[in-house]
Amino acid sequence: MNLKMIVYTLGRIIGLEGILLTLPLIVSLIYGEWSTALAFAITAASATLVGLLLFKLTGKSDQTIYAREGFVIVALTWLFLSAIGAVPFVLSGEIPSYIDAFFETVSGFTTTGASILTDVEAMSHGALFWRSFTHWIGGMGVLVLMMAIVPDNTGRSIHIMRAEMPGPTVDKIVPKVRDTAKILYLIYIAMTLVEIVLLLCGGMNLFEASIHSFGTAGTGGFGVKSTSISGYSPYCQWVITIFMLLFGVNFNLYYLMLIRRFRSVLKSEELWTYIGIVVASVVIITANVSSMYSTLSETVRYSAFQVASIITTTGYSTVDFNLWPSFSKTVLLLLMFIGGCAGSTAGGLKVSRIVLLIKSIGSEVRHLLHPRAITTVKFEGKTVDKSTRKGIGTYLALYFFLFAVIFLLVSIEPYDMETNFTATAACFNNVGPGFSLVGPVENFSFYSGFTKAALSAAMLLGRLELYPILLTLSPAAWSKKHK
Amino acid sequence: MNLKMIVYTLGRIIGLEGILLTLPLIVSLIYGEWSTALAFAITAASATLVGLLLFKLTGKSDQTIYAREGFVIVALTWLFLSAIGAVPFVLSGEIPSYIDAFFETVSGFTTTGASILTDVEAMSHGALFWRSFTHWIGGMGVLVLMMAIVPDNTGRSIHIMRAEMPGPTVDKIVPKVRDTAKILYLIYIAMTLVEIVLLLCGGMNLFEASIHSFGTAGTGGFGVKSTSISGYSPYCQWVITIFMLLFGVNFNLYYLMLIRRFRSVLKSEELWTYIGIVVASVVIITANVSSMYSTLSETVRYSAFQVASIITTTGYSTVDFNLWPSFSKTVLLLLMFIGGCAGSTAGGLKVSRIVLLIKSIGSEVRHLLHPRAITTVKFEGKTVDKSTRKGIGTYLALYFFLFAVIFLLVSIEPYDMETNFTATAACFNNVGPGFSLVGPVENFSFYSGFTKAALSAAMLLGRLELYPILLTLSPAAWSKKHK
Repeated sequence: MNLKMIVYTLGRIIGLEGILLTLPLIVSLIYGEWSTALAFAITAASATLVGLLLFKLTGKSDQTIYAREGFVIVALTWLFLSAIGAVPFVLSGEIPSYIDAFFETVSGFTTTGASILTDVEAMSHGALFWRSFTHWIGGMGVLVLMMAIVPDNTGRSIHIMRAEMPGPTVDKIVPKVRDTAKILYLIYIAMTLVEIVLLLCGGMNLFEASIHSFGTAGTGGFGVKSTSISGYSPYCQWVITIFMLLFGVNFNLYYLMLIRRFRSVLKSEELWTYIGIVVASVVIITANVSSMYSTLSETVRYSAFQVASIITTTGYSTVDFNLWPSFSKTVLLLLMFIGGCAGSTAGGLKVSRIVLLIKSIGSEVRHLLHPRAITTVKFEGKTVDKSTRKGIGTYLALYFFLFAVIFLLVSIEPYDMETNFTATAACFNNVGPGFSLVGPVENFSFYSGFTKAALSAAMLLGRLELYPILLTLSPAAWSKKHK
Repeated sequence: MNLKMIVYTLGRIIGLEGILLTLPLIVSLIYGEWSTALAFAITAASATLVGLLLFKLTGKSDQTIYAREGFVIVALTWLFLSAIGAVPFVLSGEIPSYIDAFFETVSGFTTTGASILTDVEAMSHGALFWRSFTHWIGGMGVLVLMMAIVPDNTGRSIHIMRAEMPGPTVDKIVPKVRDTAKILYLIYIAMTLVEIVLLLCGGMNLFEASIHSFGTAGTGGFGVKSTSISGYSPYCQWVITIFMLLFGVNFNLYYLMLIRRFRSVLKSEELWTYIGIVVASVVIITANVSSMYSTLSETVRYSAFQVASIITTTGYSTVDFNLWPSFSKTVLLLLMFIGGCAGSTAGGLKVSRIVLLIKSIGSEVRHLLHPRAITTVKFEGKTVDKSTRKGIGTYLALYFFLFAVIFLLVSIEPYDMETNFTATAACFNNVGPGFSLVGPVENFSFYSGFTKAALSAAMLLGRLELYPILLTLSPAAWSKKHK
């Protein structure tokens, strides 16, 4: 294990967080929130200093890294990022308990959007901005951001990118990792800006438009009101619906559109499956809840918003969907597990894994019927090798195994099964709200510190797709046997 | 597709069911339940006649069958078996609705033990005997029974055995399928008789001892009282606890013990994992519920009974575990999904699959850390090939996919998520009772006919391990392209 390189990268990241913390500092200053500003200033300065120190101390060492260093770097980065990002909330006194602040920050960076805040409206502008800005950073990935802005001379950062980007496979869209990272971030910034402008047109002020665009772009879900998006105009709700869905699409497709390869985009099986699931869910829920609302357009708007919010694992709401009939709630629960497309900012299992698993089932059925025939699985025009298929099966097993462990830990709490189960599902899939006591108009404040820690682990596992955290905890990763 | 051979086998099975139906007929006559006796007599006679007719009509045809015929035969056998087995309940008027009677019979044959009866005590002895006898037949498998007693000259019945026996792989324990079937049934009969004798010693009468031994042997769960086993002595409760656990073990191990290969038994990874899970669950639950009961021995008895009942997917109860704290309920819920050992009469995913999946995760972790190293998975002393591992991953995917579909269908019902979710889990894993409205002191009568049909399908899918039903419904199985 190349420890020096790990510390070196952590130093860079901590320094970068220090710089990013100046943004909420500026917001606090604009709104005249002095104590909040002081909290951000102290944290920003300390982080930059510590980062620079670590970076300088290890700068001239061997920069070669392998897959395992990639996983460990990603896991530790996200842990430190959250641990430091939580500090201003405690320093400013807005979230006095550190474990609460840590939960809130992990929830931010992992784009979950589950909150322990009982009174969002009481928070300062600076704190609210930082909370939502963590969504925006976490959505595309902070290490990807670092690669985009810092010159890279190791040529090995694809290991880091693979470990941080969601989905069963990660391809560089252009030969250089750094250029890929840049392109992804430029698309991300452009789409976020378009959404901000469209929300400004809908009457939101710049602060609210930014917050909600960050929450949408990262598929996070933090807002500025305990009623989430329900207080905004139908126009704003539709803008957010559409952008949630757009940010749930594989970003490679946007790049393909930029280079005018529209045919490739139209042939994406994952895209069509995603669209199919969304449309089917909206139709089913619209039919199921139609008696609860007065007009069809209102019903469609509510069901489209909730479906988009849950499948992309954003977690915004325009109605209290906890009051919906069991059937609609079950549809939403299943969408939580499906999640968005690979290579997007969304969580969950990812549509491409679902498609591959269903194709594997079809292939297994053909194999059972005709044991001697050779069966292959094709996805996005390419044959999927057995090793990838086995890998996805194993991923599913690990996913449910870890889900079971976290659900068991959360079940120590005396709440009903719907609360504990959906809290686990909502955190593990980076959705945010669940049902019952953790429904869209509720929050996670009532859970114990232990459970908040367990759910924080769930959010990190979910965002980083299990392996980075698991590998970092595995003694085998740290053994000196192999270098 | 060899249709004639399918009809031929169905004829045999229906005839066999006709003969088996004479047993509850005799019980009815002994207890002087004339209307029930008449119902069984009519069904037994009709089934024997129809069976003979089908059998005679197709007897001289080509008897070659392949894997796909094996799957279709198993699926159709279980469907017809249940459809016919339900008739006496309707004819005698004890379960007036046919869908209710069908649900009850499917629940019997699949060894689920979920009931729609609101008043078990009001049932006739003949009906109660049949209900529990279906557990006994379904546990080891009716086609395996047929193979054991009917001379087989096709040499292809391993396809049928594979499709009916639970577990990721099925081996003949002796070279001939028929001898394997005989050995399995002899062990099964011997163990059932020992349990009957032990329960007689505990003060149960012969009728009750038989019913509960059938329910234990098949890991079914039907009894004679709405209070399940709670009214019986601690001695009887312990006997049933131990026998539930014994019937959850792979029967191949009993054969190995018979031929004195004890070392092989002691080396079984699946056995030790099973024992480990049971012991750990008992310890955890005992600690968790200790404040609810007065003495430690009582607490251990209750927790051991419930753990044994749920992991073996039997479904008997000695306490209303729905009143236990969330943590213990979650442990039980997870045990429902794990299930017993492969090659036992238990349901669920099976311990061997869980072990293989966890080993696959370990292998994947090693692969990620050292991409160039060759990683293998060993189970029970043998290397597991990639194809088997891929197959188990696909099985898991199919399992959760079908689970989601059935859960969605059940969610059309307006009940709480805990009820609908655990009803699905309890039927799909052939457990019987769930939590909340379908808890151990409740029943499934309140569900609609549609939901009862969906849950019946879930029970059949679970008992036959998904593929037979799925393949029979797949157009590819019926296409003439391949023979």
